[in-house]
Amino acid sequence: MNKFGMYVKFTAKPGRRDALAAILLEAAAAAESVPECELYLINLSETEPDVLWVTEVWSHAEAHAASLTREATRATIQRAMPLIDRVEPVQLKPIGGKGLLFSSAAE
Amino acid sequence: MNKFGMYVKFTAKPGRRDALAAILLEAAAAAESVPECELYLINLSETEPDVLWVTEVWSHAEAHAASLTREATRATIQRAMPLIDRVEPVQLKPIGGKGLLFSSAAE
Repeated sequence: MNKFGMYVKFTAKPGRRDALAAILLEAAAAAESVPECELYLINLSETEPDVLWVTEVWSHAEAHAASLTREATRATIQRAMPLIDRVEPVQLKPIGGKGLLFSSAAE
Repeated sequence: MNKFGMYVKFTAKPGRRDALAAILLEAAAAAESVPECELYLINLSETEPDVLWVTEVWSHAEAHAASLTREATRATIQRAMPLIDRVEPVQLKPIGGKGLLFSSAAE
């Protein structure tokens, strides 16, 4: 089964990046109990002061879609919304590399 | 010590994305023996047919810089260059999340 990946660029409202980072780190902690979530990394942009990037890899696309319907996820999104100016996703198909397990017989 | 992160967007010359992906997957395999390279994932863009993204996390910035001076890395870059139209890096500071170990006392 193909993994599903995303980079999500969050532009925070001015001065709210740290508060947004704290909420996203809570979301990452909650993801520890979701085995289909293989990677959920919070990164500060080194060049844009209001920007955060989240690196996500899921074992399949359906697991990501299902996560968005969970009550805890929706509550987190509600809390984060007032801090966010803009969200820009980059949709990815992870095909291999170091740091995660890939089946050699990828479909 | 702070981790160092990058997304690197490679736009391949038309029709050369698969050949470029193969070289980047070799680079990832070589990185298996470099402990400071924590993540080196090759991703196809789902929306741009000539685009690949590489997700990199290193245990510190100096390890990344050192990798660029290695003979094997330089040889790989030489092989990849003719396939590449454009390279756009996004510089990141990974601060936490699921999938990698972060020290709780980040500087």
